[in-house]
Amino acid sequence: MKLDAVTSRILKFIDERGFRQKGAFNLRYNGQAVCHGDTENIRIVKKKDNPGIDVYISGGTKGEEIHIPVVVAASGMTDVVYNDFYVEDGADVIIVAGCAIHNDGCNEARHDGIHSFHVGKNAAVRYEEKHYGEGEGTGEKILNPATKIYMGENSVFTLDTAQIKGVDSTVRETYVEAGKNARLYVTEKLMTHGEQSAISNMEVQLNGDDSSAQIVSRSVARGRSSQVFHPKAVGNALCHAHIQCDSIIMDQARVSSIPEINANYLDAQIIHEAAIGRINSAQLIKLRTFGLTESEAEAVIIEDFLK
Amino acid sequence: MKLDAVTSRILKFIDERGFRQKGAFNLRYNGQAVCHGDTENIRIVKKKDNPGIDVYISGGTKGEEIHIPVVVAASGMTDVVYNDFYVEDGADVIIVAGCAIHNDGCNEARHDGIHSFHVGKNAAVRYEEKHYGEGEGTGEKILNPATKIYMGENSVFTLDTAQIKGVDSTVRETYVEAGKNARLYVTEKLMTHGEQSAISNMEVQLNGDDSSAQIVSRSVARGRSSQVFHPKAVGNALCHAHIQCDSIIMDQARVSSIPEINANYLDAQIIHEAAIGRINSAQLIKLRTFGLTESEAEAVIIEDFLK
Repeated sequence: MKLDAVTSRILKFIDERGFRQKGAFNLRYNGQAVCHGDTENIRIVKKKDNPGIDVYISGGTKGEEIHIPVVVAASGMTDVVYNDFYVEDGADVIIVAGCAIHNDGCNEARHDGIHSFHVGKNAAVRYEEKHYGEGEGTGEKILNPATKIYMGENSVFTLDTAQIKGVDSTVRETYVEAGKNARLYVTEKLMTHGEQSAISNMEVQLNGDDSSAQIVSRSVARGRSSQVFHPKAVGNALCHAHIQCDSIIMDQARVSSIPEINANYLDAQIIHEAAIGRINSAQLIKLRTFGLTESEAEAVIIEDFLK
Repeated sequence: MKLDAVTSRILKFIDERGFRQKGAFNLRYNGQAVCHGDTENIRIVKKKDNPGIDVYISGGTKGEEIHIPVVVAASGMTDVVYNDFYVEDGADVIIVAGCAIHNDGCNEARHDGIHSFHVGKNAAVRYEEKHYGEGEGTGEKILNPATKIYMGENSVFTLDTAQIKGVDSTVRETYVEAGKNARLYVTEKLMTHGEQSAISNMEVQLNGDDSSAQIVSRSVARGRSSQVFHPKAVGNALCHAHIQCDSIIMDQARVSSIPEINANYLDAQIIHEAAIGRINSAQLIKLRTFGLTESEAEAVIIEDFLK
């Protein structure tokens, strides 16, 4: 099908790999799946009980991409979607999700994406989720993702999330259970500005021996925005976890970081590091001596920090 | 007055500098002040409305020690005490507090020490507080200290707390407000064993420009004991805070560390680090090659860690 200009344009913000109507894909637009495709290994089935899709990924999948972006372009719309992923033993897959909101009206536009991942043994999943908001109206752009991940033995899950800009309010809920020798990698990038508010809660239960989690969160808070991070790692077995949260505050912004590490087992080893501070002034001065204006220099530092 | 043998013995655990009935001192025994002394600079006054004392420390105080230990040696006793310290501008003082419980009975023995410190400009306070429990009985030894510290301009406060052993249950509440250029140093050491439980909540509000806080918490959890740490640093001005929590878990113990860092101001710079893990096995092996038994080697490592 032919996409309108706004949709084509804003899809690029949330799907940097490039959304195309081929391979395994599903485009949800204003609360409806408007086009979709399957492949030999990947089957996307519309849910009967709830809005959303079930995605079946066979063990034969090797490096295939699934693109399932969401666009909300209507002011006053609340779109709630339940997507479930069944990843068979041994599959290797890249899932590109995310939501772009274009709101020119005065009512809020909201998307709640509830995603569950059932990851089989020896499977590898890379899940990318970008959030973006724009529009001339006064209506808020709200994104509340909930992500549940159940990791089987020897599986690897990479969760790569980014909230680029324009999201007025977000509450992110992430829950992970890691089985034996399962390895979780999380990268979270968050930028807020204006009067925006962002809350990110994450709980990782390390239940299997030799399971591990590496969580890196980087954020920039500008304007009068506020951010709260609450990552929680629970070690119930011989496991390793490392949480690192770094935030830059600018202007009148506020950031809270409340990491929680729980060791319930002798051989659980959990480390956390967090830092909040302003832009490094030495870096700023150095860039300005190269002829950059203050705001150009800030932009370079922030881009590098969130890279 | 002549102290009984048990009191003399257990006072040594909580007052390593040595309790003597001279200088500024106050010994509280089973809920009563049994002896006390003032000096030219330091006046200890029994409260009229509540159990406890008001301690007035003049600006002329330079390096004097105040010893105010508490002993609870009666099963079934709950001793609640309110001690307030008024530290004048420019004073320099060392306050040695702490509580030792000897409980041979089957009922709980409990001490709640509620301490407030009103610290003047340019004053320096070192506050040492040790907690210790012992006794052959089945009655619990419970210590719930609450410490409030209000720091004036350019003041320095060093809070040195240690729970040595034998305390079945503790809930520690610490609250600090730091004014301009005030510097706070906190060292917390905690050892739990058996079925013991320890909770430590700490909130530091950095309100003045150039204020700073350095918080170091080290703990060892053995047996089936549990520990929860919740230090919170709030930066409301140009300030620095560094929180470091390190815990060793042994046996079937559990440790939770929930540091919270809040930056409400552009020039607040706050860092947190936490780690939970078992005893370093390389260190253990090295010590054992020197001929130490496993438990001797463990004891050396723990002692070094808590030093």
